[in-house]
Amino acid sequence: MQPYNRLNKDDAVVLLVDHQTGLISLVQDFTPNEFKNNVLALADLARFFQLPTILTTSFEQGPNGPLVPELKEMFPSAPYIARPGQINAWDNADFVAAVKATGRKQLIIAGVVTDVCVAFPTLSALAEGFDVFVVTDASGTFDKTVQQAAWARMSAAGAQMMNWFAVACELHRDWRNDIEGLGHLLSERIPNYRNLMNSYAALTAR
Amino acid sequence: MQPYNRLNKDDAVVLLVDHQTGLISLVQDFTPNEFKNNVLALADLARFFQLPTILTTSFEQGPNGPLVPELKEMFPSAPYIARPGQINAWDNADFVAAVKATGRKQLIIAGVVTDVCVAFPTLSALAEGFDVFVVTDASGTFDKTVQQAAWARMSAAGAQMMNWFAVACELHRDWRNDIEGLGHLLSERIPNYRNLMNSYAALTAR
Amino acid sequence: MQPYNRLNKDDAVVLLVDHQTGLISLVQDFTPNEFKNNVLALADLARFFQLPTILTTSFEQGPNGPLVPELKEMFPSAPYIARPGQINAWDNADFVAAVKATGRKQLIIAGVVTDVCVAFPTLSALAEGFDVFVVTDASGTFDKTVQQAAWARMSAAGAQMMNWFAVACELHRDWRNDIEGLGHLLSERIPNYRNLMNSYAALTAR
Amino acid sequence: MQPYNRLNKDDAVVLLVDHQTGLISLVQDFTPNEFKNNVLALADLARFFQLPTILTTSFEQGPNGPLVPELKEMFPSAPYIARPGQINAWDNADFVAAVKATGRKQLIIAGVVTDVCVAFPTLSALAEGFDVFVVTDASGTFDKTVQQAAWARMSAAGAQMMNWFAVACELHRDWRNDIEGLGHLLSERIPNYRNLMNSYAALTAR
Amino acid sequence: MQPYNRLNKDDAVVLLVDHQTGLISLVQDFTPNEFKNNVLALADLARFFQLPTILTTSFEQGPNGPLVPELKEMFPSAPYIARPGQINAWDNADFVAAVKATGRKQLIIAGVVTDVCVAFPTLSALAEGFDVFVVTDASGTFDKTVQQAAWARMSAAGAQMMNWFAVACELHRDWRNDIEGLGHLLSERIPNYRNLMNSYAALTAR
Amino acid sequence: MQPYNRLNKDDAVVLLVDHQTGLISLVQDFTPNEFKNNVLALADLARFFQLPTILTTSFEQGPNGPLVPELKEMFPSAPYIARPGQINAWDNADFVAAVKATGRKQLIIAGVVTDVCVAFPTLSALAEGFDVFVVTDASGTFDKTVQQAAWARMSAAGAQMMNWFAVACELHRDWRNDIEGLGHLLSERIPNYRNLMNSYAALTAR
Amino acid sequence: MQPYNRLNKDDAVVLLVDHQTGLISLVQDFTPNEFKNNVLALADLARFFQLPTILTTSFEQGPNGPLVPELKEMFPSAPYIARPGQINAWDNADFVAAVKATGRKQLIIAGVVTDVCVAFPTLSALAEGFDVFVVTDASGTFDKTVQQAAWARMSAAGAQMMNWFAVACELHRDWRNDIEGLGHLLSERIPNYRNLMNSYAALTAR
Amino acid sequence: MQPYNRLNKDDAVVLLVDHQTGLISLVQDFTPNEFKNNVLALADLARFFQLPTILTTSFEQGPNGPLVPELKEMFPSAPYIARPGQINAWDNADFVAAVKATGRKQLIIAGVVTDVCVAFPTLSALAEGFDVFVVTDASGTFDKTVQQAAWARMSAAGAQMMNWFAVACELHRDWRNDIEGLGHLLSERIPNYRNLMNSYAALTAR
Repeated sequence: MQPYNRLNKDDAVVLLVDHQTGLISLVQDFTPNEFKNNVLALADLARFFQLPTILTTSFEQGPNGPLVPELKEMFPSAPYIARPGQINAWDNADFVAAVKATGRKQLIIAGVVTDVCVAFPTLSALAEGFDVFVVTDASGTFDKTVQQAAWARMSAAGAQMMNWFAVACELHRDWRNDIEGLGHLLSERIPNYRNLMNSYAALTAR
Repeated sequence: MQPYNRLNKDDAVVLLVDHQTGLISLVQDFTPNEFKNNVLALADLARFFQLPTILTTSFEQGPNGPLVPELKEMFPSAPYIARPGQINAWDNADFVAAVKATGRKQLIIAGVVTDVCVAFPTLSALAEGFDVFVVTDASGTFDKTVQQAAWARMSAAGAQMMNWFAVACELHRDWRNDIEGLGHLLSERIPNYRNLMNSYAALTAR
Repeated sequence: MQPYNRLNKDDAVVLLVDHQTGLISLVQDFTPNEFKNNVLALADLARFFQLPTILTTSFEQGPNGPLVPELKEMFPSAPYIARPGQINAWDNADFVAAVKATGRKQLIIAGVVTDVCVAFPTLSALAEGFDVFVVTDASGTFDKTVQQAAWARMSAAGAQMMNWFAVACELHRDWRNDIEGLGHLLSERIPNYRNLMNSYAALTAR
Repeated sequence: MQPYNRLNKDDAVVLLVDHQTGLISLVQDFTPNEFKNNVLALADLARFFQLPTILTTSFEQGPNGPLVPELKEMFPSAPYIARPGQINAWDNADFVAAVKATGRKQLIIAGVVTDVCVAFPTLSALAEGFDVFVVTDASGTFDKTVQQAAWARMSAAGAQMMNWFAVACELHRDWRNDIEGLGHLLSERIPNYRNLMNSYAALTAR
Repeated sequence: MQPYNRLNKDDAVVLLVDHQTGLISLVQDFTPNEFKNNVLALADLARFFQLPTILTTSFEQGPNGPLVPELKEMFPSAPYIARPGQINAWDNADFVAAVKATGRKQLIIAGVVTDVCVAFPTLSALAEGFDVFVVTDASGTFDKTVQQAAWARMSAAGAQMMNWFAVACELHRDWRNDIEGLGHLLSERIPNYRNLMNSYAALTAR
Repeated sequence: MQPYNRLNKDDAVVLLVDHQTGLISLVQDFTPNEFKNNVLALADLARFFQLPTILTTSFEQGPNGPLVPELKEMFPSAPYIARPGQINAWDNADFVAAVKATGRKQLIIAGVVTDVCVAFPTLSALAEGFDVFVVTDASGTFDKTVQQAAWARMSAAGAQMMNWFAVACELHRDWRNDIEGLGHLLSERIPNYRNLMNSYAALTAR
Repeated sequence: MQPYNRLNKDDAVVLLVDHQTGLISLVQDFTPNEFKNNVLALADLARFFQLPTILTTSFEQGPNGPLVPELKEMFPSAPYIARPGQINAWDNADFVAAVKATGRKQLIIAGVVTDVCVAFPTLSALAEGFDVFVVTDASGTFDKTVQQAAWARMSAAGAQMMNWFAVACELHRDWRNDIEGLGHLLSERIPNYRNLMNSYAALTAR
Repeated sequence: MQPYNRLNKDDAVVLLVDHQTGLISLVQDFTPNEFKNNVLALADLARFFQLPTILTTSFEQGPNGPLVPELKEMFPSAPYIARPGQINAWDNADFVAAVKATGRKQLIIAGVVTDVCVAFPTLSALAEGFDVFVVTDASGTFDKTVQQAAWARMSAAGAQMMNWFAVACELHRDWRNDIEGLGHLLSERIPNYRNLMNSYAALTAR
């Protein structure tokens, strides 16, 4: 019987690893639209819950391309570590320092590609005693087979497999904390939820 | 060598979480007909085994919509907790009280969506020492990827992954406890089983 | 520019071919629940539009099993041709006579298995000048490959590929002909439509 | 050897049929995000090419729900035919009049659900000599099987099966007609294209 | 209104093209067991209906490997054309002579790979006025995409797309022609049919 | 570091649970041909390695149907426990006695359906200290979702997930123990292996 | 009965349209490796049969990226039309002139994306009386749905759907025209064929 | 909290088990091109990181066929153990001796088929205290079901599930160790990465 290690908005930090315009062309385990939507949804929730967020990239000057501009715009003052070469972000002292500077123990991580840019820092952070929550649907890779192998490796090491919607709900805890805010977030990123809200609005406006 | 924690009809309680007419439109990891059939099959078996059953919903007055009417009709006297805002049903004191009032330790849970409305109370209940049996096919969510991540998280925490048919069979133990009753249950919800029974009936009636 | 050969409830007849309890175990291009739902939806609409309906079976006394009882009950006075051996129902004079006795030219056909029990009479009837509308989702066969080959063959011969929902809508023409009746039909067979109706009812009842 | 019937922005009109908040919950042949993106892309291109656009809905006051608000906002002065009951929009005289009032012969059509709301007016319009271009990816229905049957029926009657991207390109003809405009359209709706543009911009800005 | 060109056991000949032990390793649009079963089912029915059958192979001495031994054994006296190099069997005069020597006009063809060894002689024979019935499930190729392209090409040229079960049933016409014979054939190659027969036999033997 | 618990032909017993002609119609996570082949392959290897084998069935007189005749014929003197009602075979004293009478500790189990007839005795036997090896591909159930949930439950309890081919190879250890015997077994049940052998034979016979 | 319009190496020309490094990131209906292999296989065969080949690109200086370098290297002296803006290559006079300059009537076409860069010139060329053979597996687009719509449109207009392997075989006609040459081509692009050849070589070398 | 057991190029050895020309025809869980590419990518990285590599085969003289020639050529001086009969390579003393002679503790393993030739030595080596990293995408087997069962078994025993790309990145640690070298490796085996590099090169060359 172990305690439920539940996401806590006062103890969580978001790590966005290598969501770069070039690298994303490698992602094939999600359709491009699904993936874009999931990544932006994760960014939305990071802002909504005012979670400290850390951006890192790998070789932006080369073929990997720059960080997706939307992310840069959404987190203008976030620590931004352009790694000079380390593949595992946790091998970069600045990145680890930025994480530790938040004083938080719960790492919410997503990136491209899952099996490397997400898995490596996840395994490193777990080994240092952090709790790691992988946002599986905002992390992409070559195909479903690679995805499943990466999940198995991280899961076996103690990472928790999540999706952005569950992250948002676990952080929010109670709709009453901000009904409109959460509703807006979901409406923007879940078309069927938006439809429900619009159907409802139409009927109650009569 | 740990004991086989087997479902016991004298120690099990069924928790149906947020099977609401609006929320169900979010479910895409099962076809609508399969999902409806599975949810109603779980309800059927809850009644057949006279298991205490607890219903809970989230914001029925809004876009989430009311509880699916069939469930309301099937359990007219079940505890019914309309949560005022808590996303995790286990955060609602009335819900937990209703569970504990049954004095039972085996929780059979299903709901919409799997990664939130099922996973959160599952993790909370496990942490309090309950045994949790997730009815995977009566629990729906956005897509197979989210489903698989949610299963992995719950499974890693000690929940048992089941399906309604296995739940029914594990509770029943022996056909002789009620051959006709179980046969009827299966016939209503498994078309191929119904066909077998009808073929058999036709031949033996000759 | 050929005229739109549109289903007309005064000129259509429904042919249900070999939906037998044994034969249905051969169907694997639909899940059992989807297939059962589609076949019963077709039966529902045949009754709703009061279309003449003809039932036929092949060797009910043997392994093929009896006609699905629900169909027998729904059409107690329909012509019922138990073919003594003809695989193509159109090779059975009684069947053809029953069709011709209706005086109708539009054949709505479904059956098990698609590539034989549906395709053969479809091709025969087309050759005699009938219009044939295949209800693809109430017709089942061994797998998707066989399904696709059968569709291609029938389509090339001039049959129109439809689904039960489109058949219902094309026959109904205008919701105002019977709003409640069509709504009820859809609610029984399309879970998401039922959910919409229940959400709506809950809101407007307030 | 028949001439290539090519979309012409001076002869085309866009018909958006029943993209309503409730009905869209029936769509399962595309993921919700893909479908939303495709429908909005079609709307974007209709505006970009200044094509006359006609909106129609079915029973907005009931469970079908209102037209998706984005569409209403994007075409504030478009003819808007709220059909009182006709399932086939072509059975509604106002709708046909609106189409004919444009004086155009090429109908670009999309809607929910494909097999009914798209197929019926497509077949009617073809029978009256119009050219019909079905935007398959902005038209949704219950599942892939129904989708394929509906495509087969419309294709056999002479409709051309297209997707929103091909429609945009066929209308545009030459990038030089408006490089930035088309680029913007694609960037908004094709994440991988946006990534290419952002990678390019980053490099050329150096 | 064209006549139904129905398979006739007195006018049909079976062509088995290049089912060689090496070439079959190229087949990936069916699982190996499904494909083996389908090919042998086609051979079974050729024998059952005593159809003239023609075997042909390509370069058996090399990597393509010998004809599958089962086929050789089942048709010991069939014309056997080991083509010295022609890829299209119809380019081989002996093969065409063997076909024409049967005096039959209906060609039932299957082979490996579908897009070449089946498609080429199919197109050639159609051009010479033969009727061609492609046994799609006894013909294999690299993947589903290639399969679909090959079907489209042959279908557009007038070939009829079939499967072995439909071929058997269309040839047999009436169960009474040989109930036990057809039953045996189906029982050997359709496990679910065998199960039905065994269930039936068990019950009626009581 | 735990020892590799490897199958040993002197310590293994095969349990075939409820492979009945009726019940098999419920299996949809494998195609009928694949499933039949896998079950017979497991039976083949049980005989080849002369493993004690225990057969058990549930209600053969009713709709479940008799044991698949091939299995009955292959193991004429095997203990055969027709359970009078127990769903979990391990609840039947005769079955457990038959297992224990073999004095073996490694249980190789397969059955229909996986989530019940395989999972229940697997969990019971593990709890009593047996080693359980589930032959996943000779065990079938309603669909892939149920399959995956059942695997997860058994795997979490310590069962080893295997397939018939791996079972055969792990038991055989070294080809030299019987090259021809194992080759024959594989040739009968793996078409591509048969093809390799036939290609080889043709070349070496020259 | 129309003649079999068979590819003829003296009358065929290959058109490679917009296989550019940027645009290829849009292709999701094939895996990247499959697609690369298919495109290079088509290039290989164009060279092997010494077919005139025409290269064209769209906006190579911008985000679309340069022509895949391998293609440029393989056809150093091929006409190379960098279109200044025309989306449909057939709208570019130089391109059409290059095609016509070959004096050939059979166009073998492939490109990115299928629904635009392949479909548009295909439809244009068909309208001018050319025969068009679409190499479906060397043409890529956004997803399978778009692929299928594009195939349907081109097929309805009279294009023949092919794959690179069928193109090679139809051009080659007879292995004896160059056994080693064709063998080499297949060995490079079909791994299972290479394996067959290597197995064979090993055995015959003994 | 266990340490992150990270691949180390000074402690890792690569084991390539039974990648033979015949056996590969059994692989169906990857397409032939994907599988070939993945196996060669693993070989590439073994050379790039100068990892000791051990080759082993099973019965090369028979139907299994010789080792894929590319592998033989790439590792001309690697230990090469042609096992005389042991199915589990770890049962072969020479193989184990070769592994131990490297003095390394991290085994990177891949082979054909996953459930036997990979799983058995993996389980044996884990039991002896080695760390085992399974290269899932360079290991193939009969189908996805077998693949998943084999992964589950190995994972439960403590093996780490990886893919070749993650292996390469974990070994490399930092791009600066050899930017061009790693870039070349990725460019050869990941078409979308190659495209990124070529797009980049074209732009920066201007």
